[in-house]
Amino acid sequence: MLAALGMLAEPHFKRRPGVWKMLVAAMCMALLSSLQAQDLPGQVSIVLLGATGDLARKYLWQGLFHLYLEEVGKGHHFRFHGTALTSTEQGQEVIAKILESLSCPGDMALGHCAELKAQFQQLSEYRQLKTPEDYLALSKDIEAQVKHEGLQETGRIFYLSVPPFAYVDIARNINSSCRPGPSAWLRVVLEKPFGHDLHSAQQLATELGRFFREEEMYRVDHYLGKQVVAQILPFRDQNRAALDGLWSRHHVERVEIIMKETLDAEGRTSFYEEYGVIRDVLQNHLTEVLTLVAMELPVNISSPEAVLQHKLQAFQVLRGLQRHSAVLGQYQAYSGQVRRELQKPDSFHSLTPTFAGILVHIDNLRWEGVPFILMSGKALDERVSYVRILFKNQAFCVQSEKHWVAAQSRCLPRQIIFYIGHGKLGSPAVLVSRNLFRPALPSASWKEVEGRPGLHLFGLPLSDYYAYSPVREQDAYSLLISHIFHCRKDSFVTTENLLASWVFWTPLLDSLAHEVPRFYPGGAENGQLLDFEFSGGHLSFSQPLPEQLVPGPDSAPLPSDFQVLRAKYRESPLISAWPEELIARLAGDIEAAAVRAVQRFGEFHLALSGGSSPVALFQQLATGHYSFPWARTHLWLVDERCVPLWDPESNFQGLQTHLLQHVRVPHYNVHPMPVHQRQRLCAEEDQGAQAYAEEISALVTNGSFDLVLLGMGTDGHTASLFPQSPAGLDGEQLVVLTTSPSSPHRRMSLSLPLINRARKVAVLVMGRMKREIAMLVSRVGHEPRKWPISGVLPDSGQLVWYMDYDAFLG
Amino acid sequence: MLAALGMLAEPHFKRRPGVWKMLVAAMCMALLSSLQAQDLPGQVSIVLLGATGDLARKYLWQGLFHLYLEEVGKGHHFRFHGTALTSTEQGQEVIAKILESLSCPGDMALGHCAELKAQFQQLSEYRQLKTPEDYLALSKDIEAQVKHEGLQETGRIFYLSVPPFAYVDIARNINSSCRPGPSAWLRVVLEKPFGHDLHSAQQLATELGRFFREEEMYRVDHYLGKQVVAQILPFRDQNRAALDGLWSRHHVERVEIIMKETLDAEGRTSFYEEYGVIRDVLQNHLTEVLTLVAMELPVNISSPEAVLQHKLQAFQVLRGLQRHSAVLGQYQAYSGQVRRELQKPDSFHSLTPTFAGILVHIDNLRWEGVPFILMSGKALDERVSYVRILFKNQAFCVQSEKHWVAAQSRCLPRQIIFYIGHGKLGSPAVLVSRNLFRPALPSASWKEVEGRPGLHLFGLPLSDYYAYSPVREQDAYSLLISHIFHCRKDSFVTTENLLASWVFWTPLLDSLAHEVPRFYPGGAENGQLLDFEFSGGHLSFSQPLPEQLVPGPDSAPLPSDFQVLRAKYRESPLISAWPEELIARLAGDIEAAAVRAVQRFGEFHLALSGGSSPVALFQQLATGHYSFPWARTHLWLVDERCVPLWDPESNFQGLQTHLLQHVRVPHYNVHPMPVHQRQRLCAEEDQGAQAYAEEISALVTNGSFDLVLLGMGTDGHTASLFPQSPAGLDGEQLVVLTTSPSSPHRRMSLSLPLINRARKVAVLVMGRMKREIAMLVSRVGHEPRKWPISGVLPDSGQLVWYMDYDAFLG
Repeated sequence: MLAALGMLAEPHFKRRPGVWKMLVAAMCMALLSSLQAQDLPGQVSIVLLGATGDLARKYLWQGLFHLYLEEVGKGHHFRFHGTALTSTEQGQEVIAKILESLSCPGDMALGHCAELKAQFQQLSEYRQLKTPEDYLALSKDIEAQVKHEGLQETGRIFYLSVPPFAYVDIARNINSSCRPGPSAWLRVVLEKPFGHDLHSAQQLATELGRFFREEEMYRVDHYLGKQVVAQILPFRDQNRAALDGLWSRHHVERVEIIMKETLDAEGRTSFYEEYGVIRDVLQNHLTEVLTLVAMELPVNISSPEAVLQHKLQAFQVLRGLQRHSAVLGQYQAYSGQVRRELQKPDSFHSLTPTFAGILVHIDNLRWEGVPFILMSGKALDERVSYVRILFKNQAFCVQSEKHWVAAQSRCLPRQIIFYIGHGKLGSPAVLVSRNLFRPALPSASWKEVEGRPGLHLFGLPLSDYYAYSPVREQDAYSLLISHIFHCRKDSFVTTENLLASWVFWTPLLDSLAHEVPRFYPGGAENGQLLDFEFSGGHLSFSQPLPEQLVPGPDSAPLPSDFQVLRAKYRESPLISAWPEELIARLAGDIEAAAVRAVQRFGEFHLALSGGSSPVALFQQLATGHYSFPWARTHLWLVDERCVPLWDPESNFQGLQTHLLQHVRVPHYNVHPMPVHQRQRLCAEEDQGAQAYAEEISALVTNGSFDLVLLGMGTDGHTASLFPQSPAGLDGEQLVVLTTSPSSPHRRMSLSLPLINRARKVAVLVMGRMKREIAMLVSRVGHEPRKWPISGVLPDSGQLVWYMDYDAFLG
Repeated sequence: MLAALGMLAEPHFKRRPGVWKMLVAAMCMALLSSLQAQDLPGQVSIVLLGATGDLARKYLWQGLFHLYLEEVGKGHHFRFHGTALTSTEQGQEVIAKILESLSCPGDMALGHCAELKAQFQQLSEYRQLKTPEDYLALSKDIEAQVKHEGLQETGRIFYLSVPPFAYVDIARNINSSCRPGPSAWLRVVLEKPFGHDLHSAQQLATELGRFFREEEMYRVDHYLGKQVVAQILPFRDQNRAALDGLWSRHHVERVEIIMKETLDAEGRTSFYEEYGVIRDVLQNHLTEVLTLVAMELPVNISSPEAVLQHKLQAFQVLRGLQRHSAVLGQYQAYSGQVRRELQKPDSFHSLTPTFAGILVHIDNLRWEGVPFILMSGKALDERVSYVRILFKNQAFCVQSEKHWVAAQSRCLPRQIIFYIGHGKLGSPAVLVSRNLFRPALPSASWKEVEGRPGLHLFGLPLSDYYAYSPVREQDAYSLLISHIFHCRKDSFVTTENLLASWVFWTPLLDSLAHEVPRFYPGGAENGQLLDFEFSGGHLSFSQPLPEQLVPGPDSAPLPSDFQVLRAKYRESPLISAWPEELIARLAGDIEAAAVRAVQRFGEFHLALSGGSSPVALFQQLATGHYSFPWARTHLWLVDERCVPLWDPESNFQGLQTHLLQHVRVPHYNVHPMPVHQRQRLCAEEDQGAQAYAEEISALVTNGSFDLVLLGMGTDGHTASLFPQSPAGLDGEQLVVLTTSPSSPHRRMSLSLPLINRARKVAVLVMGRMKREIAMLVSRVGHEPRKWPISGVLPDSGQLVWYMDYDAFLG
């Protein structure tokens, strides 16, 4: 198990299917059923650590009582041990009060309730649990009592309602002094936070893994116990027939996963300041909901292992988040609250976001292109949580609107809403537009919502929905405690699941660390200040900031202060600009060259370099150039690393990911370099360089590419032609094998003479790293052996330098 | 010029850029300006044929008068000749009445109007124009009169407001007897219909081409003279800055091009019965509008040749229409009207559609995936015409709806509407949602629409739009007549344009010829009966037919009467079904095999055949299978024709068009057969077959494909292994060159031994044509030399036959 956990911490753990998890789940089921098959009555001990705390008071004791009400008379005996660091006397007092306040379900007779409550109180005790000896004593007491009553021990549940810094000590004590005998099970329940980022989550998981096996741990995300959230998969399952044709990018317009709060963080800033809204709500609650909506539905959803495995697979197709996947806000009073509560100086300003909107994309054929919007914030205008699946309007209604029949017309919004709670409706519910389909829900536990004239939800009157709410509202913790007892691991966060979520969120959190959030007044006054929108994968606030910073005399120049510079560099035209403009300009020039070549010759031969600078260019070409004659364009590689084409290091792989997947270049117009033939990489005897040269000669008139895009290395290399290495700098060969000073060392490259035959050569140089070499090369003559880039000088074509200000002006 | 027109009639005319059109336009401009430069005043004669007809009465005389009002005093002299077949006396009487009823613009002083009207009446005459002698006489009279008045002749306009059957005779007469001298121009104006389908349109174009040069012909589509339609390009041009970022698939949700009529066809059924709504409205008016919206905007929109060329290019990227691109309706009273007006028997039922909804897709990077909905119908609930460009909602509004500020919130509909006329607004207008941008319109000719509280258009109150209407409403014909005079050819339908439109529409019209339209009651009673929706490129009515036909005892079996049949064929499993189910089943089986193979081996090797049957399979796989592991799939070809891969006959080309363009298979996992190397096709010395065999050996374990898809020819061939030809039937060779009895003769093919190594072989057989061979092959033994298909028997893999009922049951 330790090995398995170690494996999880590896970056490639994603690729390993959850095989061991199936074993674990199978063991769990086997244990449960073998126990049920026995005749000897079994005892279950439930130890609630932090039994006098807030969560325990509010929810956990009530949940334990519910479990008792559910299970009493079904064969198991229960004992409940409330523990804390508090002295026995004080603790007993508190617990006695809590137990007195417990309530039965509304439909239970009062006398019966009183009777069961008395039983439960008798089965519950408080004890101090602090030292290893305390744990040992607890264990001995349980054993003695089980023996005394002539029972067998079935298992022990330890519910850790304590701050996470206490986890490891407690875990050590449970493991060393408080495990039940080999025939009984152990379950340890943990409350979030489970770390602060991937690294700390891994650390915690590894430490816990020293004491518990994976199947012994139950990590609670109480959102999974919310009745509506717990209904998402059963809903998808029971309405497969209707949803099969709808649950995909062909029909879903967008998915919104929303948790809005009116409260702010006052009184909790010591926690909040460290976490912020993304760690507090999005990384856990909203992400769990996201996977339930997006995952492929297992054939059998009552198999926890199948559900967990499919859920994990959903993480693997989430597209990585980038800085521009998020918008952040902070309510204006927040920094003041932090200063007061955490005794910070007046100059302190927090960057912790209290509001975040995130755009998630899913890279599979089911969801590609469908925006999943995750949003949560404090101090907003209303308290409400929901998942809204809005379907595309693919109908045209021939009659004018006044003839549309609400709830039937296919032109009115069609949506499914998992209304998690609060808001105008005030209770959890599942809503399906009547113009969509009549959903099936289990009639024993869900009932139709009564009409409420005048109530509009998401643009439609309530009467336009089939609306169902639970027959009996149940608290999330009651449901989860029951699931712990019944081994329903799919309602909990496994280690794999947890780490997958941190793998997804951590890069974004890192990149946002120094981001200044937009300030908002709070409540209805927020107006449209926080509205945001997406375009091409980027998220931004809809409204520009109401006030613009006025740059002082010493402030750095803004991009708009510069025009695109035109000048000369090495006696050839130089185009210099900020990166975005530079890329836009280069893309425009390439398109113009393409259109011209296709008009003149019917085709356009473009040779592209690899590396990171062209990525932005590829993206620009892929998304912004509608008239680019791709169908008539041939794509060639300037150089290639001797790795398989599917290797992430391959230049071709970058071209494929950022350009080819988005445009329609015919397969036979794409010419990767043959670096990988007969299972070998750049073997001389495979004559790959010669083959590429022949392909060029056969298709490119005179071997003159219409455009060659080059870069420049910090050592003055270009293509894969390196200093102090003569290959490809002159001679007859069109394509050569070369050696790079950096790994992977072997390369294939167009030769300098071939490059110089091009009609146009564009050299793209970007970033501060290039400043020195740019300066140096501006001064040297024709010395390709020292600086191969200095040998680029087209025989009769045009050379243009594209440099950003960082490289050129420094 | 005749040669040029002949070229247009060729199917490949699409590829020829409109070079000669530029020449023509240049000539036209040159003529005009040379005339203007002269000092001698010139005379323009306008001959209106059909001068007593409906169109002339209603619009054309008024248009001519407008032209006169516009041009009087600018140097040109005018004469107007109304002609018809009617006797001179009768005609003169009619014309006198028409001329008396002409009106001036509202802002002209009454006295001035009366004066100019009197002048116009004096310049206008009626004459009978029937025989060749009449034409000659007209020409002589014009010449004499020009000479008499000491003028030069500038040009002659012949406006043919006559039925199209009269065109050719008139054209011949004009050409032989009525052309002006060489220094004056001739313009002939034609009214639709311009043919009934591509063939008749070509025929008419060819005949007219015998008499007139392209630049002499002005084909009227009066929609191009509607003020709002004429404003589309100027609007796009003047709002480039705002629209550049919006006018593409990234932002446009849909485009609706709509013409609704309340009138029915009563009294016009003799015309309508022959044409129907598609030929009457969609092929011309709505298609012209479509091109104005979709075309790439020329840099200079005041260049008619640039506009015409870009418009023509728009036709070239329209995706071909299929049967399922349309829904058709007919108002219930129509057949009765036809019976009455055309004296048809009681048993007559017309299939002519009076309503059509069409889904158009545009295959370029700007518009890919954006639905263009064209709709027109008679007997609908309102009369209105508009183009609606609805933009995607890419915003998320954080506050609840009650806080949204109308006209600002980005979550409310954002749209641009070219309101062509009628409807609730009652006048032409351009509407732009206020949450979009404030449009620029020429302030001299467009004014803001006055507020009309309570008026809602397309889901928004009028006040939520920037709304502009023409300062002075102008009739379409007035505008067009002015454009004829000013040589604005871009307001007319060129021959190329016309034929391109017919190329687009004719296949749909053919495929719908025997389709029974849905009947609708007419007016508001239509309810939601005609609402339609699209999914995966298919259009269908939203509501199922209210009544189902109950099949009588003799009626043919319906698809639903059959289940998928499972049986044996040649001792292997046979799956038989109707084509759609069969394809769905085969696609499902291929996906299952793919998932299994990827789970077991990490990759899936699929070898596919070409031909027409797999096309539906490719489409099914491309659009319906979200979990297909494409990234791990290798695609191989079973056989290939020795043609370049880009040849339409190439099997690879079919694979690329119908599958590869829609899924993400990495470039290096696609393995076309190397039939085209070193510019040669299947040269023995290029060893293409050996190279393919080596590629297979290197990548496919044991050369065992996971799945091979085969077809069966009517001669019993499979792959490219043909009867009576031993190549590839046995032996060691994995890939062979073979000879087909049909062209192209040379082929490359996997050998039978290699095919038989596969884990699974699926043979797909569809269509009545295959019935006989299917019957025969069911009886023969293992005789690959006679029937190569009989040699398909996997060594250890599985063989499954997929046959549709047509092939199997006949």
